[in-house]
Amino acid sequence: MLVEEIQTALLNEHSEAIYRMIREHHPADIALALEELEDEEVFKFVSFISDKALALILETQISEELQVKIVEAVPFARMLNVFTYMSQDDIVDILGNLSIWQRKQFLNMMKNRDSDDLEKLLAYDPDTAGGLMTTEFIALNENLTVYEAFETIRKIAPEKEVIETLFVVDAKTLLKGTVDIRDIFTKSDQQKLSEILNPNVISVTPTTDQEEVSLIVTKYNLSVVPVVNNKNRILGIITNDDIIHVINEEYTEDMYLMGGVDSEETLDSPVFESVKRRLPWLVINLFTAFLASSVINLFSDTISQMVALAAAMPIVAGMGGNAGTQTVTIVVRALALGEVDWGDWRGMLKEIGAGFANGLITGGVAAIALMLMYGNVYLGVVIILAMIVDMVIAGIFGYFIPLAVKKFRGDPALVSTVFLTTATDVGGFFSFLGLATLFMPLLV
Amino acid sequence: MLVEEIQTALLNEHSEAIYRMIREHHPADIALALEELEDEEVFKFVSFISDKALALILETQISEELQVKIVEAVPFARMLNVFTYMSQDDIVDILGNLSIWQRKQFLNMMKNRDSDDLEKLLAYDPDTAGGLMTTEFIALNENLTVYEAFETIRKIAPEKEVIETLFVVDAKTLLKGTVDIRDIFTKSDQQKLSEILNPNVISVTPTTDQEEVSLIVTKYNLSVVPVVNNKNRILGIITNDDIIHVINEEYTEDMYLMGGVDSEETLDSPVFESVKRRLPWLVINLFTAFLASSVINLFSDTISQMVALAAAMPIVAGMGGNAGTQTVTIVVRALALGEVDWGDWRGMLKEIGAGFANGLITGGVAAIALMLMYGNVYLGVVIILAMIVDMVIAGIFGYFIPLAVKKFRGDPALVSTVFLTTATDVGGFFSFLGLATLFMPLLV
Repeated sequence: MLVEEIQTALLNEHSEAIYRMIREHHPADIALALEELEDEEVFKFVSFISDKALALILETQISEELQVKIVEAVPFARMLNVFTYMSQDDIVDILGNLSIWQRKQFLNMMKNRDSDDLEKLLAYDPDTAGGLMTTEFIALNENLTVYEAFETIRKIAPEKEVIETLFVVDAKTLLKGTVDIRDIFTKSDQQKLSEILNPNVISVTPTTDQEEVSLIVTKYNLSVVPVVNNKNRILGIITNDDIIHVINEEYTEDMYLMGGVDSEETLDSPVFESVKRRLPWLVINLFTAFLASSVINLFSDTISQMVALAAAMPIVAGMGGNAGTQTVTIVVRALALGEVDWGDWRGMLKEIGAGFANGLITGGVAAIALMLMYGNVYLGVVIILAMIVDMVIAGIFGYFIPLAVKKFRGDPALVSTVFLTTATDVGGFFSFLGLATLFMPLLV
Repeated sequence: MLVEEIQTALLNEHSEAIYRMIREHHPADIALALEELEDEEVFKFVSFISDKALALILETQISEELQVKIVEAVPFARMLNVFTYMSQDDIVDILGNLSIWQRKQFLNMMKNRDSDDLEKLLAYDPDTAGGLMTTEFIALNENLTVYEAFETIRKIAPEKEVIETLFVVDAKTLLKGTVDIRDIFTKSDQQKLSEILNPNVISVTPTTDQEEVSLIVTKYNLSVVPVVNNKNRILGIITNDDIIHVINEEYTEDMYLMGGVDSEETLDSPVFESVKRRLPWLVINLFTAFLASSVINLFSDTISQMVALAAAMPIVAGMGGNAGTQTVTIVVRALALGEVDWGDWRGMLKEIGAGFANGLITGGVAAIALMLMYGNVYLGVVIILAMIVDMVIAGIFGYFIPLAVKKFRGDPALVSTVFLTTATDVGGFFSFLGLATLFMPLLV
């Protein structure tokens, strides 16, 4: 195991072994190993390695805490040198996680041009296109020839993050189109960029939400998206690897919210942390459970006349909850993919239809089972009707709740299942026990 | 709306309007509009547009059904010409969806070299690295100089999908390393590729599962992954845009399975389709609901003595289900990200601890509420004990079930929640009603 190898090398101050590990392992694997070490071990390790190696490690998906810890422990002067090996959007991410005081220190000590760019980028919300973008793109004037473009790229390519797409601008630096790097190889040297550029560029603005950016990238199969201001001046670019991280992040968030978990929690979180993060959801659930329970209380007379009702009623509520979760899942996913909008009522009609059909079939099976178990036909009639009612309720609420949450600018994955199970529990208990009360003379 | 514009243009056979739309809209938007049209309208539209425009439309995320319909309706000879504008992995996807007979027809009519490559790719499972890859990469011999590499790229670049990463091979075509296209611009003309190549290349084999490929791409921040055989001969490459689609696909699948929905269903599926796909899950849930209900039946004597128990028992079972869903969500996501493995028992101990703490706190709140509602201290004692027991059960099963499903080569997102709620319902009803039976002399 890499972790143990590092620990042994550090214990023996065996620098040669550490250099070998850096050479032989990918920075992402080194970073994962560092996550397992004690703070002092990490700092010692960092002091052994080169600035470039440290830069590569900081650019991986290392945890925010560890990143900040390392940056705070390394001397300012060294860190400035480490930054020279890092891409600008990664530096922005790190600076964004530091205290304002530390961030200022870094910006003051950098070259003017660099710190100006960084400061502008730091001003954007990290969850928007502005927060994701880097200014290290290649912009070429439309009047350059292919040959001149080649010579320019030769000079500036090493500092730029993406070179396969070249952005072509006019004298006012407004974006006119893109040129693929392969055109620089294959078109004739004397052609002007303005003649070979592709004018249909799909772009976003700095305030576009990162989820929207990832939808656009997915839909149009883009490998890089330019970020432009309202005058179509190019401000920066967003690269595909950043989009992959956004998609992973948004997915984890959606799934966690649907499951009632805080998106910061991982499997490694300590017990106290887990309890702190999960408890709020459970307390909300507890209140809604009491709401459902109070519906049962309303019908205590009915239940006292026939205890079998107590056994059967969770079946109705549970099945309604399951059917509603199916609807919520479909709608939440469709919302995340931008495929459904508020006011699209046809979808709800379909969900009502599906609820009715599924309620009829599963209710029929349940009715037969109850009739056989208790030898009472009317109990079967009550459960089939109640299940149809509750599954129709499930269809309506399962469709409506995520749309409503989105309408009020919430995340539809959040609270949708909480509201839903409240609706299906209340609906299930009420319809089943209510119908049982009506049919009581026939039931006992 | 583009859909109506297309319909009007088709009705009036207004070819000029159709050319304009093709010029002014992105193929992905055209494709979305086509999804809304009747089949005959689609075929008419396709007959109006150029082969290149059709190729661009077929390369977007158009639905499989529509893609196959178009390919079947277009004459063979035209389709072969359309293919010349498409990238190889997209052609493979299309051919893979056709009948064996049609696929053979196409392969027979193609140039020998093309059809050989395609036939090899078609042999791979579409969900593996082999199924995702394209053979349109640039491989250069290690003995070439930078200048010679430049001249070679000049000739072959237009047919290759990725040119920012050049793969360097030896005389036996074994992969030696990669060279970044910017090195071709910035290194001196006479240097050999063997001197400037990066030998640490992360690669996959053709049988690597697509989920595994997307994890590797995410972890190592790759923009392209080479696919090699066991001798390290490069067979193909996988591009970043394909990875984005894999991640989207795998994630939708996980979320759907957790929500009890078939991954083929969308919001647009007709009612009959929805019912057919959801009913199997609901029937399974119905059987497990009866299992839980039969536990309640065991205690019908207890309930008949105190109807308040009927109202309180769904609180215990529901809270256990919610707590267990939280655990399942964390574990399923960790499994998808490759962060947890079978036999990692520390995690389960943590979940037991979290279950105990959350049960104690929410059970305490519930106990106070019940004591106030019914004026009975012992009812409070019963519910707090029952909630602790059920939430510990939730922690154990919520952790164990996804790992067990994975162990038996199932998808952990599948059936985990069904098994879980069965466990927490049975556990909740049994512990609450069982404790109530023990405490009965004090309760009534």
